[in-house]
Amino acid sequence: MLLLLLHRAVAPGLRQACRLSFSSRLKSTHSRLCIQACSTNDSSQHQCPSLAFSTENSSTRGWRVMGTLLGLGAVLAYHDHRCRAAQKSPHIYTREEVKSHSSPETRIWVTLGSEVFDVTDFVDLHPGGPSKLMLAAGGPLEPFWALYAVHSQSHVREILAQYKIGELSPEDKLPPTLKTSDPYANDPVRHPALKVNSQRPFNAEPPPELLTETYITPNPIFFTRNHLPVPNLDPDTYRLHIVGPPGRKPLSLSLDDLHQFPKHEITVTLQCAGNRRSEMSQLKEVRGLEWRTGAISTARWAGARLCDVLAKAGHQLRATEAHVCFEGLDSDPTGTAYGASIPLARAMDPEAEVLLAYEMNGQPLPRDHGFPVRVVVPGVVGARHVKWLGKVSVEPEESHSHWQRRDYKGFCPSVDWDSVDFDSSPSIQELPVQSAITEPKEGEMVEAGEVTVKGYAWSGGGRAVIRVDVSLDGGLTWQVAELDREEQRPRKAWAWRLWQLQAPVPPGKKELNIVCKAVDDSYNVQPDTVGPIWNLRGVLSNAWHRVHVRVAS
Amino acid sequence: MLLLLLHRAVAPGLRQACRLSFSSRLKSTHSRLCIQACSTNDSSQHQCPSLAFSTENSSTRGWRVMGTLLGLGAVLAYHDHRCRAAQKSPHIYTREEVKSHSSPETRIWVTLGSEVFDVTDFVDLHPGGPSKLMLAAGGPLEPFWALYAVHSQSHVREILAQYKIGELSPEDKLPPTLKTSDPYANDPVRHPALKVNSQRPFNAEPPPELLTETYITPNPIFFTRNHLPVPNLDPDTYRLHIVGPPGRKPLSLSLDDLHQFPKHEITVTLQCAGNRRSEMSQLKEVRGLEWRTGAISTARWAGARLCDVLAKAGHQLRATEAHVCFEGLDSDPTGTAYGASIPLARAMDPEAEVLLAYEMNGQPLPRDHGFPVRVVVPGVVGARHVKWLGKVSVEPEESHSHWQRRDYKGFCPSVDWDSVDFDSSPSIQELPVQSAITEPKEGEMVEAGEVTVKGYAWSGGGRAVIRVDVSLDGGLTWQVAELDREEQRPRKAWAWRLWQLQAPVPPGKKELNIVCKAVDDSYNVQPDTVGPIWNLRGVLSNAWHRVHVRVAS
Repeated sequence: MLLLLLHRAVAPGLRQACRLSFSSRLKSTHSRLCIQACSTNDSSQHQCPSLAFSTENSSTRGWRVMGTLLGLGAVLAYHDHRCRAAQKSPHIYTREEVKSHSSPETRIWVTLGSEVFDVTDFVDLHPGGPSKLMLAAGGPLEPFWALYAVHSQSHVREILAQYKIGELSPEDKLPPTLKTSDPYANDPVRHPALKVNSQRPFNAEPPPELLTETYITPNPIFFTRNHLPVPNLDPDTYRLHIVGPPGRKPLSLSLDDLHQFPKHEITVTLQCAGNRRSEMSQLKEVRGLEWRTGAISTARWAGARLCDVLAKAGHQLRATEAHVCFEGLDSDPTGTAYGASIPLARAMDPEAEVLLAYEMNGQPLPRDHGFPVRVVVPGVVGARHVKWLGKVSVEPEESHSHWQRRDYKGFCPSVDWDSVDFDSSPSIQELPVQSAITEPKEGEMVEAGEVTVKGYAWSGGGRAVIRVDVSLDGGLTWQVAELDREEQRPRKAWAWRLWQLQAPVPPGKKELNIVCKAVDDSYNVQPDTVGPIWNLRGVLSNAWHRVHVRVAS
Repeated sequence: MLLLLLHRAVAPGLRQACRLSFSSRLKSTHSRLCIQACSTNDSSQHQCPSLAFSTENSSTRGWRVMGTLLGLGAVLAYHDHRCRAAQKSPHIYTREEVKSHSSPETRIWVTLGSEVFDVTDFVDLHPGGPSKLMLAAGGPLEPFWALYAVHSQSHVREILAQYKIGELSPEDKLPPTLKTSDPYANDPVRHPALKVNSQRPFNAEPPPELLTETYITPNPIFFTRNHLPVPNLDPDTYRLHIVGPPGRKPLSLSLDDLHQFPKHEITVTLQCAGNRRSEMSQLKEVRGLEWRTGAISTARWAGARLCDVLAKAGHQLRATEAHVCFEGLDSDPTGTAYGASIPLARAMDPEAEVLLAYEMNGQPLPRDHGFPVRVVVPGVVGARHVKWLGKVSVEPEESHSHWQRRDYKGFCPSVDWDSVDFDSSPSIQELPVQSAITEPKEGEMVEAGEVTVKGYAWSGGGRAVIRVDVSLDGGLTWQVAELDREEQRPRKAWAWRLWQLQAPVPPGKKELNIVCKAVDDSYNVQPDTVGPIWNLRGVLSNAWHRVHVRVAS
């Protein structure tokens, strides 16, 4: 979609030629955007953002055409704005000044390197749509350009050059530093597109405009759910402690040791139990972070299979129920580490593909996502994917951690903090079927004629999403959305499906109540309303997602 | 509950003493009701109904107390009715005459053996509640007494004796016969309590009053879903054909051969995809039988594991997706047999416990339930549990049968018979979470003070039901129901949970809108309303179940 809205100066006929079919576009999304992990999110590996086209697939040709068209757009833009740019003289600005220019009223400034640009007049011309460019308003462009390889073309820089208004002051060219007395002082620097729900510990989600832009979520904008400060671990001295069964010695595995196990790679969607909590809290107060629809993301994970590592340590399946407990190396001031557990049966099942992951989208894990090793439990709530993994043990009972026993459980709407009995409810493991609309946004104005609705859908336990129904009239009538064509392995559909619907806006309608609901291959569906699933912790919020928009007349 | 409502002549204090706690009652249900398969439903094994108490468990003592109390009730009943009975003189009646006396207006007659009784005045005194006795109105008592061992006590016959009004005419003492020109002529005789949705093929469900009376559904009232006439198979010549992999000879297994495999026994709930279809058809016409809440039942099944039999035939798991196809020995006039398939991965997984079952609740399978061998696929829609099994093969594709490819699939509510594309939707395998209210019944009058709500809850795929919420105000406020204590094996919760809620009726309420909804251990929930899950075949009807009752003032 990044390129769908072409420069308005380009003739409509050319624009038409660029509209590739939805499925072919989605299919090639991953191959065409060769995104390397952004260095801002990964202070352990000091790589520069590396942006490159894939030259090994047939979609490249289509992109050359696109590039040419964009080039034409660029020429026209160049023509439009050359005169005004030439008249302006360079000036020195502070970052603070740039930051204050982030709306049409104050004008919209951005930076690239040490240069400052006023892009107010370009916002509506942005090929990826105005909303995407606005994400960078008042700040640097680099983190966004790092996400989308299409910007690494000379004509893009040429367009931008026309809007230059000055330079950053020398002291503002350095990245911001954090106070060292703060336990969070050592946290990594994050991508500015992330919508921050809590700074300490850091919790943030990608904006909906970017969330379903690509099937694979780029590392820098993958939602981040931290419970404690981010540990700063040395990969050379890192050891993973695997407690053995009685009579067997424990394993102490270095990163190199872990690499000796067969490398297993899978695409897995992670979702926080609190995703969409804000819809519950609108109804009645809940305790928890105000996640909107973005506490969910998808990555390609690689690592050793947990079953291989457990077998090496001498563990095997037991006749009685047992649990694999994980402990993180993040800890609070009392030394209490984050912990969680999953059933041994899942851990030992090769088909469940539980990973001790050391790679995320082809890169070492970013620090925010568990560097150097985290657990990935496909189909299971994010809370069990323990990051900065320090210790693994097999126990007759679930982890005794707060997060396993006194959190991340569902309750009847009538249960309050006085009456809650955490032991009465099982810890969340597999999550229920979920979907949400990412486009258009709540309150947006859509064009009359045709509306495009986009979103994601996912279900826990490896259950594939088989259908997404969309309604434009609040749920009275429904249409079937088109699903992406990404592979859905039977019983191992660990990753989401992106979907979209292009539908005529019923003539005369002044507003639309857009609703989506998904069905998984056990034919489970989402509940109609949030009230009857409301719970005091605001978890498991998977009612139909609703977006109200106005129609331009 | 059968004994909860004691004879009204018994002092309230005694009644109080009989109220065992809900959980202990549910727990002992199976052991105390030693139900042998009813001969009417099983013409291949000509056994007499055998009704006996279990003498091997601790609940027997409780029942002796109960028996004594009932005895007291009987004595009082005896006293009440002795005079009138003595005054009446025997008379000869036809079955047709008896049948016409089935309501309070016409008086309520029943038969036992060759004797006819007018039990009108006893209906309200029936310890199991009036509604249970009314199920037998106008017909024989034997099929109902066969379900509940408590009736095999001498004082029960003594009570009944007081109501005798005559004898059946000699020709009516023989069981009814069917016409032999009819392809269904050879179908077995069924239990009169079954609510028949279709006579040919036979499809029937137990009434809600009996459905959740016991955790294990007695064979004679287990819901019956036949697609074709019931074959009459000779167990001595029966052979099950297992097609081998390329290069291997097929197996031809006799019943004795099948018994040579390790015997595996599990409790499994079967549910028809069309259970609760009548709620969908109330909204808008659908094609299918008008199942109410009773197209679901639970039995203890025993047989050989399919994985053992497939392994013996030389089959193993394949890297590519494959399917195990089943063919029944029931066939239509063109010779087309019933057929269905399940994924090979499920069939080969010992933990999935797929059975070639030859026993149901300790008896050879009744003819209506697949004698001599049927498939039992725990956690999966009833349609795949192929009865009268004749052939098993492993194929690269799903069964090509009508019932696999052109039926038993879910669709968006907007899809009609003109637009339906059966290939666009996967065949139903695992079913979604489900629950329903069995007591009180729609339109019933309940007492002010306290109301007891009872029902069942179940989910597919071995997912355990972890909670049932009940609302008395249409879903505005919720209470948590008490679940039975039957074992729920992790990942193998194949059987339903019975539940009940005893709650005060809000003072002043003239009516209650009772609603239930269940949650499974993947935290999937039922949708609020049926409209948005409506589909042209009326399958997968699992919205909140609603019952409207009036409150006695």
